[in-house]
Order: sequence, then C-alpha cells, then structure tokens
Amino acid sequence: MPKPIFILNGPNLNLLGKRQPEIYGRDTLEDVERNCAAAAADHGLSIRLFQSNHEGVIIDTIHQARDEASGIIINPGAFTHTSVAILDALNAFDGPVLECHISNVHKREAFRHHSYVSGRADGVIAGFGVQGYVLCVLRMATLLRAA
Amino acid sequence: MPKPIFILNGPNLNLLGKRQPEIYGRDTLEDVERNCAAAAADHGLSIRLFQSNHEGVIIDTIHQARDEASGIIINPGAFTHTSVAILDALNAFDGPVLECHISNVHKREAFRHHSYVSGRADGVIAGFGVQGYVLCVLRMATLLRAA
Amino acid sequence: MPKPIFILNGPNLNLLGKRQPEIYGRDTLEDVERNCAAAAADHGLSIRLFQSNHEGVIIDTIHQARDEASGIIINPGAFTHTSVAILDALNAFDGPVLECHISNVHKREAFRHHSYVSGRADGVIAGFGVQGYVLCVLRMATLLRAA
Amino acid sequence: MPKPIFILNGPNLNLLGKRQPEIYGRDTLEDVERNCAAAAADHGLSIRLFQSNHEGVIIDTIHQARDEASGIIINPGAFTHTSVAILDALNAFDGPVLECHISNVHKREAFRHHSYVSGRADGVIAGFGVQGYVLCVLRMATLLRAA
Amino acid sequence: MPKPIFILNGPNLNLLGKRQPEIYGRDTLEDVERNCAAAAADHGLSIRLFQSNHEGVIIDTIHQARDEASGIIINPGAFTHTSVAILDALNAFDGPVLECHISNVHKREAFRHHSYVSGRADGVIAGFGVQGYVLCVLRMATLLRAA
Amino acid sequence: MPKPIFILNGPNLNLLGKRQPEIYGRDTLEDVERNCAAAAADHGLSIRLFQSNHEGVIIDTIHQARDEASGIIINPGAFTHTSVAILDALNAFDGPVLECHISNVHKREAFRHHSYVSGRADGVIAGFGVQGYVLCVLRMATLLRAA
Amino acid sequence: MPKPIFILNGPNLNLLGKRQPEIYGRDTLEDVERNCAAAAADHGLSIRLFQSNHEGVIIDTIHQARDEASGIIINPGAFTHTSVAILDALNAFDGPVLECHISNVHKREAFRHHSYVSGRADGVIAGFGVQGYVLCVLRMATLLRAA
Amino acid sequence: MPKPIFILNGPNLNLLGKRQPEIYGRDTLEDVERNCAAAAADHGLSIRLFQSNHEGVIIDTIHQARDEASGIIINPGAFTHTSVAILDALNAFDGPVLECHISNVHKREAFRHHSYVSGRADGVIAGFGVQGYVLCVLRMATLLRAA
Amino acid sequence: MPKPIFILNGPNLNLLGKRQPEIYGRDTLEDVERNCAAAAADHGLSIRLFQSNHEGVIIDTIHQARDEASGIIINPGAFTHTSVAILDALNAFDGPVLECHISNVHKREAFRHHSYVSGRADGVIAGFGVQGYVLCVLRMATLLRAA
Amino acid sequence: MPKPIFILNGPNLNLLGKRQPEIYGRDTLEDVERNCAAAAADHGLSIRLFQSNHEGVIIDTIHQARDEASGIIINPGAFTHTSVAILDALNAFDGPVLECHISNVHKREAFRHHSYVSGRADGVIAGFGVQGYVLCVLRMATLLRAA
Amino acid sequence: MPKPIFILNGPNLNLLGKRQPEIYGRDTLEDVERNCAAAAADHGLSIRLFQSNHEGVIIDTIHQARDEASGIIINPGAFTHTSVAILDALNAFDGPVLECHISNVHKREAFRHHSYVSGRADGVIAGFGVQGYVLCVLRMATLLRAA
Amino acid sequence: MPKPIFILNGPNLNLLGKRQPEIYGRDTLEDVERNCAAAAADHGLSIRLFQSNHEGVIIDTIHQARDEASGIIINPGAFTHTSVAILDALNAFDGPVLECHISNVHKREAFRHHSYVSGRADGVIAGFGVQGYVLCVLRMATLLRAA
Repeated sequence: MPKPIFILNGPNLNLLGKRQPEIYGRDTLEDVERNCAAAAADHGLSIRLFQSNHEGVIIDTIHQARDEASGIIINPGAFTHTSVAILDALNAFDGPVLECHISNVHKREAFRHHSYVSGRADGVIAGFGVQGYVLCVLRMATLLRAA
Repeated sequence: MPKPIFILNGPNLNLLGKRQPEIYGRDTLEDVERNCAAAAADHGLSIRLFQSNHEGVIIDTIHQARDEASGIIINPGAFTHTSVAILDALNAFDGPVLECHISNVHKREAFRHHSYVSGRADGVIAGFGVQGYVLCVLRMATLLRAA
Repeated sequence: MPKPIFILNGPNLNLLGKRQPEIYGRDTLEDVERNCAAAAADHGLSIRLFQSNHEGVIIDTIHQARDEASGIIINPGAFTHTSVAILDALNAFDGPVLECHISNVHKREAFRHHSYVSGRADGVIAGFGVQGYVLCVLRMATLLRAA
Repeated sequence: MPKPIFILNGPNLNLLGKRQPEIYGRDTLEDVERNCAAAAADHGLSIRLFQSNHEGVIIDTIHQARDEASGIIINPGAFTHTSVAILDALNAFDGPVLECHISNVHKREAFRHHSYVSGRADGVIAGFGVQGYVLCVLRMATLLRAA
Repeated sequence: MPKPIFILNGPNLNLLGKRQPEIYGRDTLEDVERNCAAAAADHGLSIRLFQSNHEGVIIDTIHQARDEASGIIINPGAFTHTSVAILDALNAFDGPVLECHISNVHKREAFRHHSYVSGRADGVIAGFGVQGYVLCVLRMATLLRAA
Repeated sequence: MPKPIFILNGPNLNLLGKRQPEIYGRDTLEDVERNCAAAAADHGLSIRLFQSNHEGVIIDTIHQARDEASGIIINPGAFTHTSVAILDALNAFDGPVLECHISNVHKREAFRHHSYVSGRADGVIAGFGVQGYVLCVLRMATLLRAA
Repeated sequence: MPKPIFILNGPNLNLLGKRQPEIYGRDTLEDVERNCAAAAADHGLSIRLFQSNHEGVIIDTIHQARDEASGIIINPGAFTHTSVAILDALNAFDGPVLECHISNVHKREAFRHHSYVSGRADGVIAGFGVQGYVLCVLRMATLLRAA
Repeated sequence: MPKPIFILNGPNLNLLGKRQPEIYGRDTLEDVERNCAAAAADHGLSIRLFQSNHEGVIIDTIHQARDEASGIIINPGAFTHTSVAILDALNAFDGPVLECHISNVHKREAFRHHSYVSGRADGVIAGFGVQGYVLCVLRMATLLRAA
Repeated sequence: MPKPIFILNGPNLNLLGKRQPEIYGRDTLEDVERNCAAAAADHGLSIRLFQSNHEGVIIDTIHQARDEASGIIINPGAFTHTSVAILDALNAFDGPVLECHISNVHKREAFRHHSYVSGRADGVIAGFGVQGYVLCVLRMATLLRAA
Repeated sequence: MPKPIFILNGPNLNLLGKRQPEIYGRDTLEDVERNCAAAAADHGLSIRLFQSNHEGVIIDTIHQARDEASGIIINPGAFTHTSVAILDALNAFDGPVLECHISNVHKREAFRHHSYVSGRADGVIAGFGVQGYVLCVLRMATLLRAA
Repeated sequence: MPKPIFILNGPNLNLLGKRQPEIYGRDTLEDVERNCAAAAADHGLSIRLFQSNHEGVIIDTIHQARDEASGIIINPGAFTHTSVAILDALNAFDGPVLECHISNVHKREAFRHHSYVSGRADGVIAGFGVQGYVLCVLRMATLLRAA
Repeated sequence: MPKPIFILNGPNLNLLGKRQPEIYGRDTLEDVERNCAAAAADHGLSIRLFQSNHEGVIIDTIHQARDEASGIIINPGAFTHTSVAILDALNAFDGPVLECHISNVHKREAFRHHSYVSGRADGVIAGFGVQGYVLCVLRMATLLRAA
C-alpha cells in the first residue's frame, strides 16, 4: 500500500465549523478528515490530517513528509500570504502538492490575493468549501497514478 | 429535469490537446465534454459546452445562460485577465459560477495572476489539468442541490 | 436636416432595465432611445441608437459614423476601461464625442475609475442614470449649433 | 416652496470668464447663476450660488446647507483633488449631491483625474462647459421629485 | 498654575454628535470640553478647546499655543491626511503633542491611513471614541509632570 | 465577577525595561501587569497578562480567550506588521479588542506603519509608553460596561 | 513554392491613409499589400494580407496560419497593448513572427509602450512608416531561408 | 514707475527667524522685506511683501496681483506640496513667477520633493537661505526688463 | 555626394560575434560595417561606423555628427536604458535618428524594456539580428530622400 | 576565554546537504559546524551552532545570546525576508552581527532581495556557499579583536 | 587670495547657445565664464570653469577640487538624474556645493525631476537661465564669507 | 602558474582611506592590494588591482580580463547601482565573479540597495570593510580550485 497523503492545515483551522460559518461553513476538521479518508479509500489510498497554529510545526511536518508521504494537500491558512519558509519546505518535497482554500480568497482583502505556496503547488483550489479537500484527494489519486 | 450547466471556454481553447501539451496536456475539448457529461449524468444533470475566440460571443452566451442554464463553469482563457465585460455579464447571471484554468496560472507570467472573473466566481480551480472541469461539475452538483 | 447623432452602447447594455436595477435602474434601451429621439427632435435633430457586445462591431460603427453621423454619444460599458481600439476609432472621428455612464463609476471598483475614452471625449457624465443620455443630447445640440 | 439648491464653487471660479477662456469659456459666474435660476424656476425650484477661495468657507456653507438646502451642486475647483474635509462635510449632508467640472478634467494633468468628492456625489459631469451647471439643475429636479 | 492644554479640533468636528453617530457617537464637543476640563482639574491642570473648519485658523492657534499652552491635544479631522502646514506649525511648538481620532481611521478608506501629524506627535490614539480625548488629558498630565 | 481581560504581548516584549530604554522606557512587563491589575480592580475587573515570542502561542492564547476572556488588549510587537494569522485569530474572537504600542510606530521605519491587527481592533494607541496599557484598561472598562 | 507569409492588421488599420496622416502617412493598406507582394516575390515568396477590427477574427486567422502560413507579420494596432488572447494564439504558431508598428509607439502615450505581442515576436519594428512592412518581409525571407 | 513685485509667503513663515533656526536661519520676514526692497530699488523697482497662513488669502492676493503686480515671487511654504488651488491661481496670472524656498527641500522628507507650483514657475530656488529672495528680485529685474 | 550616415555602437558591441552568440549571433562589427556600406552605396550613400565603451566618446561623436553626418543609426547597447546624456546629445542633432537593437530587448530583463533614446528616435528596430542595421540603412535612404 | 560566537540557522537549513544541492551544495550543517569551530579555534575562539524551523525559538536564542555570546552569525533562511521580530531581537543584542546566505539571493526570486536583518547586520555575505560561514568567523575574529 | 570656485558643467553644455535656444537661451559657456568671473571679482574671488561630456572626468575634477577649490558650482546636465558616482565624489568634498540648472527641470519630463546631486548640494537653482550661474557665485560669496 | 585574479575598483575608490573614514575605514587601496596579494600567494595565486572613475575604462578592463584573468573581484562603487554596461561586460566573462562592497550598502540610502552586478556575480559581500577583499580572494581560490 502506498504512503499516505498528508493533509496539512494552518493557523485557526482548528476552529473550522466554529467561527465565521458564513465564510467557512459548519463542517469541522473532523468532518474533513472523515470525508477525505473515504474518498482516498475509494482509490486505494490513505490520508493523515494535521493542523497547527505554529509555522515551525508545519515546516517540521513537511520535512517528515519527505519520507512518509506520497503527496501533500495543504491549506496554509493565513501563512499562505506570509510564509516563505513553508514555500521553501515544500520546495524540498518531491511529490505532488495541491493547495486548498475553503473560501474564495480572491474575493477578500487584497493581501489575501497573493500566495507564496502557489509558486510551488501543482494545483490550487479556492472557494469550493470543505468539498475542496475531497476534490484534491481525487486529483491526488490521478497524479499518483500517473507518477 | 433541471436546466443544463453551461461550460464556457474562451480563446484558443479550440486548440486544446493540439498546442503546448507540456502546459495543457493532450486531451481535447471533446474529451472534456464527454467526461463532464458523464460526471453530470451521475448526478442527474446535463451540460452544454461552448467555445469561442470572440469575447462578444461569450458575453452573448452568458446572457443566454440567464434563461437556459442552472450554473456556469467558465474557463475564460486569456480573457480572464483582460475582460471586464465578461465579469459584468456574469454579474447579471444569478446562478452559481465556477472558474476553471487547466494550468496553474499562478506559476506563469505575472499578468496571468489577476482574474477579473474571480471577483464574481463562487470558486476557482487552477492547475488540475482537464480534470478540473470534472471536479467543477461535482462541485456544481453540490451547489445546485443546496440551492 | 443634419446627420443623426449616433448613440453607441457597449457590452451588457442590452440587459438595461433587466439586471441589477439598484445600479442601473429599470428603464430599458428602448426607453433611452425614445427619450433621446424626443429631446433631439426638440432641437431639430435626430438620433440612431446602437448596442453591441462585440468590440469589433462598435469600432465598425464608429467608422460608419465618420460619414453618417454629426456627433457620437457613447456609453462604452466595460470597454471604457479596457479598449484602446475604441479610443483609436474615436480619434479618427472628427465631430464631437460625449461619454455617458449610467452609474457613478467613480464610486465602484478601482478598475472602473480609468477610462480610455475620456482621453478623446469632449465631455463625460456619470451617475445621472439614463437621464444622462438625454442631457448628452442637449449638450450635443449646443455643440453642433456652435460648430 | 421647497428649499433652494445650493450651487457651490471653489477656488478661482470667481475668475470664470476672465481667465484661460480656451479652457473655461467666456461665461461668468453671474451668467451661470442666471441660467441655473431660470432652469430651476422651470421646475418650481430655486437656487443659491456661492463662491469662495477658502476651503473653510465652503465647509461652513455645506454645514449651512444641512438646514437650508434641498440639494447641492458643487464645482470644487482645485479642492476636488486635495480636500478630504469637503468630502467629510458632504458626507454629513443628507440630500442629493452633484459634482460639476467645466473642463474635461480627465484630459488634463494626472493629478486632476482623482476626485475626493466623487466618492460622495450621486453624479459627476465634466467637460460640458458652463452648460454642465444647468444640466445638473435638470438632474437635481428629477432627483428631488423622486425623493 | 501652569498654562492650559490646548485641545484643537479640525473641520466638521463642530458637527460632533449630530452627524454619522454610528461612526462618531452622540457626544458633542461641549461634552468633550466638560469631560476634559474635569479630568484636567483632577491633575491641577486646565484646558482650552478650539474648533475650526479653516486650516489657517488652526495654524494661527498653534502659533498662539507657542506662548500660551503647555501642551497640545489635536484631532485634525480631515486635515490629518492633507495638511503639511499643520505639521510644520506643530514642529514650531516645543511642548508635548498628542493626536486623537474618535474613530479607528485604520479601518476606513485607505487615504485615512496616513497622518502627517503623526510624524510630530508624541502619541496617537484612534478609535477610543470621545473618551480618547480624556485619555489624552491623562497622558498629558504624565508628560507635563515629567517635563 | 466578569471574565478577565487578556493582555497579550508579542515578541521581544519580555525584554521590556531591559532593551533600548530610549524607545521603550524602563518599566518592565511586571510593572505593566501590576498597574493594569490595579486599574482594572478600580472598575471591578481583573486581567491576565501573557507574553510570547512564538506567533503560534499567541494564536493559541487568543483561541483560549474565546472562552475565558471578556476583552483583549494586545501589543503584537513585530507581529503587528507581519501576522495575518493573528488577525484571523482575533476575527474569531467576539469581544472588544484594543491594540497598544509603547512607541509611536508612525515615527519609525516605514514597515512599522502598517498593522494587520488594526483591521480588527476597535481602537489603537501608540506612543503613550507603558501608560498606554493602563489607558486601554480604562477604555475596556467603558466598552464592557456598554456591552 | 512555400506557404505564404500572413500579414495581419488589427483594428482601425482599414482607415490607413485616411485618418491622422501626420501620424500614419498617406499610404493605404492596398499600397502596403502591393509593396510587400513585390518584395516577397523578389525572394520567391508570397504574402496574404488580412485586416480586422475584431480580436476574435484575428485569433481565428492566426489559428488558420498554423496550417497555411510560413511566417506571420503582425501589426496588432491597439490590440498590441491589451490582448493576451492574441499573444496566446501566436504562442500556438510555430513559425517566425515579426511585429510591425507604423508610428514610433514609444514616443506616444505611456499605455502604448507595452506590447503583449513582443513577448512572442522574434523582432519588433516601430516608427518606420509603412516601409516597416516591407522591411519585415525582407527579414522574414532571411528567417525562412535559415529555417 | 512699474507695478510692484509681489512677494508672497505661505504658512508658518510669520515665524521666520523664531523657529528652527538651524533650518531657516535667524533673519525675519521684516529683514527679507528690507533687503528685497533695497535690491529692487537698485533696479528702479518696488516690492510688496505678504504673508498668510490661510490658503484662501494667498489665492485672493494672487488674484489681486493680476491687476496690481508686475511679477510674483512666492514661497508657498507647506502649500508648495499640497495646493492645486494656488497653482491654478498662478496660472491665471500673466507675468513672471519665481518660486523660492529657504531650505533645500530636496534634502528633507520625501513629501517635500514635489511642488505643484513648479509646474507654473519660471524658475525655482531652494536652499539659498533668505538670500534666495534677493536673488529672485535680481532675476525678476532681468525678466521684467526683457518683457 | 551627401554627408555620411553615422552608425554608432555602444558598450560591449566591440565583442559582437565573440560573446553570447545565442543572443547576438556570429557576425562581427566588421561584417556589419561591410554590409551597411554596400547597402548605402546602392542608394548613393556612405556610412561611418563607430564603437565605444565610453559614454562620453559617444556623446562627442554625436556632437561631431551635427556637422558631419546626414543621419544617425545608433545601437546604444546598455546605455539605451541608462543614459539621459545620449538622449540630450541626440536632441541637439537635427537629422533623422534610427535606433537599432540586435536582440529583441522586450523579451529580456525588465530593465531592458525602457529606452531613453526611443524618446528621440524616429524609428526603432529590435530583434532583427545584425540585419537590423542594413534595414536601418534602407530606411535612412528613404528618409534622406524625403528630406 | 571569551564567550562563544552563536551561529544561528533558520528554517529548512536542517536539510542542508540533503535538498536542492544545485542551490545549496552537498555539505551538511555538521560540516559547517566542524569547519567553523576549527576556524574559530585558530583565533582562540569558540562557536555554538543552532538551527530551528521555529521563529520563536530563534528569537529566544538571540535573547540568550545577550548574556552568553560575543557575536552572532545568522543565516535566517526564509525568515530573512519576513521576520521583523528577529530584526527586533537582534536590535536588542549589543555585539557584532553578521548575516550569511549560502546562495546568492540577489539572483533568485524578487521577494528574496529584501532582508529585514540587513538593517541590523554589520556585514552581509551571500553566494559564497557554506564557505561563507567560515569567512564570517574570520570577520568576527577581526571585529571582536577590535572591540 | 582664496582658492577659486570651481564651476563644473556636465554633458552637452559645450553646445550651450548653439542648441535648442528656446530652452537654453543664446549665451555660450564663454559668456557664463566671463559673467561669473566678473561677479566673483566683485567679491574678491576667482573662478575656474570646466566642461566635460565624460562622467569620469567630472569625478576627477571634483577630486581635484578637494585640494584646489573653495567651493563648487555644478550644472551636472543629464548626469543630474543618473550619476550616483558624482554624488559620491561631491560627498568627499568638504566645501559648499551649489547646483545650477539653466531650464526649469521641474516642468520637463518626469525623469528630470529627480536629482542625485540635490542630496548633497547646499542649494539648488533651476530655470533662471544662465543668470543662475551668476546668482550662484553671489551665494557662494556669502557662504565662503560665513565659513 | 594560473592567470591572475583581477580586482576592479570603481569611482571614488582612489580616495579610499582619505574620505569618510567612519564609513570606509582608514586603509587605502594600496593596503588592499598588499593584503590581497599576500592572501593570493598563500594559495599559489596572484592578483592585479585596478581602479578607475571612468565606466568605459572598467568595461575595457573587463574585456581585457576575458584573456588575461582567471577570475574577477569587483567593487563597482557607485556604478553598482547604475551601470547595465558593466553587467553586460561581466556577462561576456566566463570565469567566476565576486562582488565586494566595503560598507553595508543595505543600511544606506534606498538607491544603494539594488545592484545590477549582483545579477551576474557568483557571490556578494558587503560591510566587511576592506577585509572583504581578502575574503573574496579566499573564496576565489576555492572556486578556481573547483573549476
């Protein structure tokens, strides 16, 4: 069985489903985890979901992914716009990387329009709600099959 | 049966599968149409796919969608970055709108980083290859079910 | 009797009165045509009203105006902000040119604050609703009388 | 009989008709006053015209308009581009506001392209010569009728 | 007894409590004056409150303060963002200067984010409502005690 | 008794009173804590003071404040200018938020002039030295009373 | 005999020789066609000249050139500065591309200084009048000989 | 005898010799007036010196100069950088205009590097101390002789 | 016989044919000189070719051209982007000026996109390899014939 | 014996020698430590090398250096471009600071061209590979000797 | 007798009086030299006038001035806007420096609005024609007297 | 024995040790030459040191280096920020290039933060005083050994 897909979540996403539901919806990270695991299983794949409010922990986890993950789905949250360090960590990962935002960041404040991570990601999805994670799993299955 | 989903494609996408396959892949618009129709049928939905190199024709088709479509999936191609008129036409459409780019535009020239259409779209997907269209159909099914 | 005034309307203005009435009001282009014709007749003038979603058609009509029109009133719609080609066509027209916007574009998104057409227009009116067209006819009557 | 319309004129407009006639024409503020009064009377309205080279006086007059005027037509002259204080004063006025420029400011120096007042005005007219004031009176009549 | 603290208020602040209460609250300048006088008296100090819509009057008053005031609390209103002349006048004043804004200017239009006065002020307070004036008096008491 | 006010301090503020006293003064965080507690007690309130050099810890503490604090006074230190993640965390907090800077950041390097936190804070104070914390407690007392 | 060279002309160039002769001279497109055909024949080559005011038609013609042309000489007119779609179409053409402007665009308005097409063109000529077309034919002969 | 030269001084220049002598020196406006009068008399000319902290008064005085002055020497002080209205007033004056700054504004804050007045002035002098006024009188004598 | 055409070459062009042949080709300046002389002779003209790495020498030669040359063809090399002094020297030359770049500078680094010389040149050619010089001679022959 | 030199390494540098060797080379941090220790010993000095992916840990270590280190050599990695907090921490350190980048950051993406740390560092070295660390030790020896 | 004043002139100023007299007038450098020498003699001073089109020669002359000149009057011509090297040379000169431009550079192209030299000059004069040089000599006499 | 290393020094560096010692120190270029020669000799290498205030001479010397030097160490002085021509000359040199600045240019004026030369240099060192030259020799020894 292949290595799992890492699904990384940045700051404040531990509050998913609990804050600003008009922007982020009512599903929680646990719902995301369950739905993604099911979608992955459909393609003979598995996932591991992480969340941290600490940039350093996310970097550490990406380093861990170098050995332990087949691909990375990352919702960097606010670090999307400010963290060169996460970009550099992803540049040191060889597998496919997909970037996922729950809301359509392009319709929000101007400082949310730029993503350092997009310079490394193979694909980007925004504004598909938590369903975006599942669609990333489907895409990852295709990419891993092609690899 | 509900109104079909319109899948609109902007300039040069008639060449899909024939030009720059390292960027756009080898599938053609006909492949896209077939895959999307199948995915839609799985959810009791139908699609109609259009392509034009003429901005005016795309606007006319969006106007037509006001009466005839339940939702719009649009890959505006190069008009993404230059057409306020398409944005205005979409603003006159009441249903859900998803924006789809085959390549990850965020990794290409700087002038491809801004999208007028994103100011109206409910969601945006980029760099998922032609599979992006199918994932948009899946998302559209969710949105139409919720409406 | 003098040549008619051409009243040119850009993309999406065929929807006037049918979309976003909180911005554009409830009058249609037919209402505009009727009111302008009446105002022109009061000054012994006539009008011809055009609308197109196609930039090329608008350019063609401006070329036609070189022979057939005494003046041009133009609401370029979204092309206001993006079309150098319409500016160049107007530069090839010798009579007076007035630019008319139904809404106050200066209060909307920043990309609506710049107009290529204003670099050629003799006068600009914005935010006077559809009454702006009629006021342009009145101004045009003054300008043609002075010519 | 309703309260009068205030017609406010900013710095250097006391020289109207006396300076740079190739830009501003040969009519004086007295001509403007007479023409506007006549146009207002046609609609059962009256006007009061003011001019000052002092920003503070213009602000004081706008405050006075809160009690004494039904609407404001303002040609802020050079203060258009520099006075946040006039914008704030207008924000404290509840009736309709129209902004009038004699010349087409969009064809002049770049610093004349931005107007603080446009962020508050219901409509803006530029380049219609002194006739612009009269057209503003016509528009004001419509707006006051609708109120 | 020491010289009084001058509390200077710029344009439109004469309307305090009468306009846009959702931004500025319902207290008037007279309330501000009374509260500040009381707070000053608690520290053996006195105040004098001024308001003008005229930039020149504010400059004159700052010059007057060179002889007559121990410190300046200034809410420059809209002049905050546009008046180099007030900055220069304050640069010619030797005592402490505190800048006070009733609303949080940083959450409003971008042109309200820059303050010329901040380049001279010892401290800046914004968004504390009219209570901000009283807190400035408390701070001024500390600064004057330390001087 | 109401929930305490959280007073959060960002990076390097553990050195308060020990580094660059010409900018930050000689009081320590312990002094701040003591003074704020006294001021809060005067209004029947209590405080809890935190400091961390770790952005993640600050975010965690803001999340904790969702349940345990009545209001937040935050001096984000250098994170003021770089942390979207702290802004997002504060956006998930429902009570009042006040932003406090010891020095007048507007007089320092240009990169210190912009604050992400100000986009969420109800009020901002800068350059009042450590007295600013106490004044924030006074303001918080007013806000909590009004709530 | 080799495939012809396509000579494409953008909007308003149908007016060549009829408008603004102080900028564009008095030769017409028919003169250009005759001169280029003669120059091409000298090198055993042929040309086909097109003009359209419609961006979509120009894109269609570039697509047609993929099969039918050995090289493209293009004067995109105003589309030079605004059309990403024409750039993308040219990117899908494999032969040599030369960009020709009759006037020296670098001496005109700033918005005429940038060309999307230059990012694809092998060479650019501007300000050589209609002779520029003939010189492009000479260059194209060299490039096709070298291919 | 010819009309006098007007020497206009903007805000805070009434403090000349009394504030920031390290920037502006110790001479007063009275010294300037005396020295300029003497220099003018050497050339059979006279001067009138004005100072105001009120932009409106300066504009009024420039209007007065249209009838009463042969030339204008202006030190607009802080209005240099912010007043379009003074520029417009000077544009309505037909004689020569010289702009004089006591300090070298180009070495001070960036916002002091731009002068609206320079767009109208025949010559500009900065950093020559109060001697700059006298040198302007010498230049004015040359210009008036040549006129 | 008319005065010769000066062909001026800026810094590093002495290395032509010896450095970076993938950008500049394998022809040397001597080849350029021979080809241009032949092309000029065909039109009864002559050329003189210069090269210098010293901006001052190029300026001196342009001054010399005021008396000795009928026209100037200049490839300013890197001075294109940095030398206002060469622009000023060319402004003091009365005959026609053509600007020639071997590579398509518009496809290279952004700082190569701006040319001071283009503000004076009658025509500009870029990316035509060393053939560009010969085409400039052809154009110069036309311009000199027309003069 | 003097206090050791602290050699601080930012995020992802734990991967040194393991990722992107074409940019960073094949030496590891252990090699760096060994080489620097040897170089330091040659000058009677010692070093301590740290690495962390956590900004907060780096700040903590700089605070620790206030007591325990004679100088700091820092390769802030990606934090170079984003961390004001590290700059502030270094501002609280009194000894010499040298900034070291393994690659020439000036040749990479634009966002790597700016360094907050350079505003505090005594010297900066970039693109000298891991040898840069050793050269920093040599420089530090000179600086400490001079202190 | 004191050391002479050096009067340095940059590129193209050897053409003074011979080119573009509508900008620069009809006086030559020899006239300037004669007038300045006379003005200097009136104050017991002498001058030496230099001109070069070579930046390096100007730098060499400024170095020479370190030993041989009491002050420098410099018209850097086009080097004003581009030469950091001349600024650095002037920074190594201890005496007074005055910057002189014949035309009012502030009314010309935008790239002429910035001067590197102004960052060092004690005073700047522009638009006073060649009389500006003489006025600089008068100012220099004052400065040298005060030194 | 290998070819020597060229050590090139730009404008004003002939004054090294004689001007602004607080920035540049008290060592002269002769000291630099002696120290570098000694360091080179330690590695079996030799150096040749050049200095010129003339950009053209520096370019000529870089061309000479194509045949005569194994590597280049360059301190371009002020040309760092302005000379594309030196960049182009270095691009025509095949060996290693190191860029050396005595002061930390990143702490000085903003225009000193950008270096054209850095786009070509293998490494950059700034703020290491004249010791930077010697460290460059050490690095060059490593690079030449590896070549």
